[in-house]
Amino acid sequence: MTQTHATAAERLAALREILAQDGLDGFILPRGDEHLGEYVAPYAERLAWLTGFTGSAGVAIVLADTAAVFSDGRYVLQLASQVDGDSYQRLHMIRQPPETWLAETVATSTPGRDARIGYDPWLLSTDAVARYSKPGIELVPMTANPVDAVWTDRPAPPMAEALPHPIAFAGQSAQDKRHEIAGLLQDAGEDSVVLSDPASIAWAFNIRGRDVDFTPMALGFALLNADETATLFMAPEKLPPATRDWLGNGVQLRPVSEIGAALAELSGRRVRVDPSGAAAWFGQTLRAAGATVSAAPDPCLLPKARKNAVEQQGSRDAHHRDGLALCRFLHWLSENGVGQSETELATRLDSFRQMDPTYRGESFPAISGTGPNGAIIHYRADSATARRLQRNEVYLIDSGGQYPDGTTDVTRTVWSGPAPAPAQVRDHVTRVAQGHIALARARFPAGVHGGRLDAFARAALWQAGLDYDHGTGHGIGSYLSVHEGPCGISATARPIPIEAGMILSDEPGYYLPGAYGIRLENLLLVRPSELGGDTRFLEFDTLTLAPFDRAVIEPALLAPAETDWIDRYHARVLAELGPDLDQPARDWLTRACAPL
Amino acid sequence: MTQTHATAAERLAALREILAQDGLDGFILPRGDEHLGEYVAPYAERLAWLTGFTGSAGVAIVLADTAAVFSDGRYVLQLASQVDGDSYQRLHMIRQPPETWLAETVATSTPGRDARIGYDPWLLSTDAVARYSKPGIELVPMTANPVDAVWTDRPAPPMAEALPHPIAFAGQSAQDKRHEIAGLLQDAGEDSVVLSDPASIAWAFNIRGRDVDFTPMALGFALLNADETATLFMAPEKLPPATRDWLGNGVQLRPVSEIGAALAELSGRRVRVDPSGAAAWFGQTLRAAGATVSAAPDPCLLPKARKNAVEQQGSRDAHHRDGLALCRFLHWLSENGVGQSETELATRLDSFRQMDPTYRGESFPAISGTGPNGAIIHYRADSATARRLQRNEVYLIDSGGQYPDGTTDVTRTVWSGPAPAPAQVRDHVTRVAQGHIALARARFPAGVHGGRLDAFARAALWQAGLDYDHGTGHGIGSYLSVHEGPCGISATARPIPIEAGMILSDEPGYYLPGAYGIRLENLLLVRPSELGGDTRFLEFDTLTLAPFDRAVIEPALLAPAETDWIDRYHARVLAELGPDLDQPARDWLTRACAPL
Repeated sequence: MTQTHATAAERLAALREILAQDGLDGFILPRGDEHLGEYVAPYAERLAWLTGFTGSAGVAIVLADTAAVFSDGRYVLQLASQVDGDSYQRLHMIRQPPETWLAETVATSTPGRDARIGYDPWLLSTDAVARYSKPGIELVPMTANPVDAVWTDRPAPPMAEALPHPIAFAGQSAQDKRHEIAGLLQDAGEDSVVLSDPASIAWAFNIRGRDVDFTPMALGFALLNADETATLFMAPEKLPPATRDWLGNGVQLRPVSEIGAALAELSGRRVRVDPSGAAAWFGQTLRAAGATVSAAPDPCLLPKARKNAVEQQGSRDAHHRDGLALCRFLHWLSENGVGQSETELATRLDSFRQMDPTYRGESFPAISGTGPNGAIIHYRADSATARRLQRNEVYLIDSGGQYPDGTTDVTRTVWSGPAPAPAQVRDHVTRVAQGHIALARARFPAGVHGGRLDAFARAALWQAGLDYDHGTGHGIGSYLSVHEGPCGISATARPIPIEAGMILSDEPGYYLPGAYGIRLENLLLVRPSELGGDTRFLEFDTLTLAPFDRAVIEPALLAPAETDWIDRYHARVLAELGPDLDQPARDWLTRACAPL
Repeated sequence: MTQTHATAAERLAALREILAQDGLDGFILPRGDEHLGEYVAPYAERLAWLTGFTGSAGVAIVLADTAAVFSDGRYVLQLASQVDGDSYQRLHMIRQPPETWLAETVATSTPGRDARIGYDPWLLSTDAVARYSKPGIELVPMTANPVDAVWTDRPAPPMAEALPHPIAFAGQSAQDKRHEIAGLLQDAGEDSVVLSDPASIAWAFNIRGRDVDFTPMALGFALLNADETATLFMAPEKLPPATRDWLGNGVQLRPVSEIGAALAELSGRRVRVDPSGAAAWFGQTLRAAGATVSAAPDPCLLPKARKNAVEQQGSRDAHHRDGLALCRFLHWLSENGVGQSETELATRLDSFRQMDPTYRGESFPAISGTGPNGAIIHYRADSATARRLQRNEVYLIDSGGQYPDGTTDVTRTVWSGPAPAPAQVRDHVTRVAQGHIALARARFPAGVHGGRLDAFARAALWQAGLDYDHGTGHGIGSYLSVHEGPCGISATARPIPIEAGMILSDEPGYYLPGAYGIRLENLLLVRPSELGGDTRFLEFDTLTLAPFDRAVIEPALLAPAETDWIDRYHARVLAELGPDLDQPARDWLTRACAPL
């Protein structure tokens, strides 16, 4: 087959032909790759190839007569603009869950019998398979992904080198980490755990890679064993001698192609597989091999989320350098921003970050939205269609950097001027700021999870009948994923207690479609509070250093404690960054950080 | 057997003898009765008889060599004072769940084999049985409760009359309600539902009774059917002719003793049983009879919680009259309180309520705690041990009334004077007030559940490293249970959206053991907000009318919006109640409601 399929309709038709040949009534195609991660390499961008949708969360369901692409509230507008409405229904995955839609749709499309729905067991977790398993549906794991059969110009998997992540940044040796994980496995009566999340592998082995954009991971799989030995499944060409030395003798190296054989060797063993984080293939393969599957979370998640003292200091250091770049950018923007395109603005911020020799690149594609584009929650400008920043409008810039000592993620919303910002803009931004502050200054007992704190960031908006359709905060890695579990701050956060050492974002927003978008984001480090008696209390320490634009904050709307918080934060930003800036930027920062 | 068992140790020994005869290693005894309710009639007070513990939430587990009584944070001190520490471990059921304790204890007490643990299937829900079903435990449903065999002077079940609850208070006919429930059953493909909660029966049939203290329910069971017919299982002597006429021909009356036979008639039918609200006996009996059990919530819970317009107005009217009694009491207290005992104070409040001819009695045993007794969260004074209110201390009074048009529940914390309240007391009370106000003035989108709002009421305390070990709010019935599901405001609230028409309490507190207790409670009616665009928003309307004691609130600690809320609330209390009070009480209320 050398034909290429140019349009979404042609690609969909070609896929349906394959499904019909396989005797299937439909197919489920999520966005993730075999690692079920957020950032996927081009070879695995099947959803984008098939449907055009490039958002970070999505799934397509293709049936014989209908098809749908689902994403969440962040991507409503992007879904509408990228996905062909003639070929696909475009649906909100929270309000209309794909598994519900599938069950309801097949009830009328294939009445009286079970619909045979194919899926790639490398792309759905065990939990996801269970969610789709409903009356009227026979789920069929496929041995080859049918999209791959029609995707003729599919890129090859990445083969970037994996390199050591030194102790000076990691703060704990890989041997120590595997000792810790082995203890967890022993406590749970397990012999081994399958790691399929490259971020867990990066943490457990103290390595970093370049296989995907934005997150310094090397794609691969691993087995950690209760006896502290480990096997790393990774293409040999990705492991230079220095990395092999760094990994040491305790780590057996095998190519990815041998993972099936390696699992078959675990007959009779008890093996942990994360039911929501690992592909269903692992459990299916282990069971077929006679192993016992223990469904429990990836044991690296919590230790990775609790940053050690070295990682905490690294993050502070990285935020200091990132803050200098941000301030230089915001200063430049205040004088030169109007007339620049959204992509030029994002590139300029990147170039300020590039001034730091340790900078390794963006931690995610910057969201640079002028005026109405700011209301597209995960907007991504491209140079062909980028809008230019106009006078007297709102500009939203959400970006982050990767540094060997830490990962950053920050959002600021500024007014381009020169006229004063309208009262409605100031009201909306101030309410978002009140939410940001309420979370940043929260103190709470140990044991509280993020679902209980989320409303702090919304209360001021809710008072005005306003809200935002995304979570308030996510975890962040240490020179690793910009979105890191297991804790978050949202209505749907898993009930896992927040712990000291975790780093979480604080990013409430407000979006007025067709007009502007607002988001104010800092990263917060969780630390023990000195208050509290019998009960331990926790509080946040803000890591991000950059002023909030005074032009869009209305002091008259703030309570004294809120004004005080902003003033103290700005004083700290000036004190920490001012000495490292040249005179013009320092003068600008001094004005930007003056008390409200 | 005519021997009586006078001490907890003797009763425990007698129970263990029965268990040994039955070949059991242990027995689980929860506090509830066959209706799994909060207020149980004396005949069913098995936990109190066995262990001495009279709190509203508890469970005992008796094993051959050890035994434990579990309750929650409200009852830590009561558990310690009522339960013999030589016979029982006294444990916190949240921190140390009984099912976990049982599994861990039998692992060492009966190693190498399953422990045979008996339970009364009339006293545990299906969900509770599932929670106790752990490896190493064989749960044995018993045909007779072993406590009844040793409890020689056990009271008889209550036989109070069930009387009509008129449309003027109910706002909807029982026929209409059963039509609504039948529609829900039809939608779910169910033929019938078992009702075992007397509050649901009271709501569905528009009847009220006097079988238990504080909650005007008639004990019984019911079957509602998808064809809108119903069967009420209730002792015939409890149903006078007027009630039989009121129930009408659509309701078949059968004695409780026939319920097993009635369930046996449902062979082949699909019958809903609430897995958490109904005794496991129902599902076990239905399955044995060849019926299909549908595990789903009691369908009366949500319609009962959403008060209709008549019930809402009834609650307002009841709160007006209750507020007059409260103000007369608080006025009297301010002049005569010092020197009175806790029981005298509670009796005096009751006597002010008795001035209203519609008053039907307390909605729960008043909590009247002076000084350090206020720190016992669910303290119950008795005349033998009641403490007298002293000068210059904190007094907490939590009480409620039953009226035919509504149920009330209110807590006030006052300073006895004459010296000014110490700064620490004012700081603590003001933080509790800030929490109360934050919840009372919250606005939130439809779909939000109480677990997301709970922290609003804690934030000011958390800022000082303080907290309270109970939920923030519970639902309340309409001339029915003072604690009503399914919604609540707490960390463990079920994720059921709060809806307009629901009535919820707002009662943060703070307790300093050995010194004082603070709780400020009003009832809130959920109503639609006029704000919000595409998303519907909800807000609260305070129903309770009584001033907060100015002597323990520190205005300097309040934000302007908080001061404004108190001032507007006090102005409303004065405007609504003042005209109905005599001159001295009105003068007192005018002073109590002056702007801060």
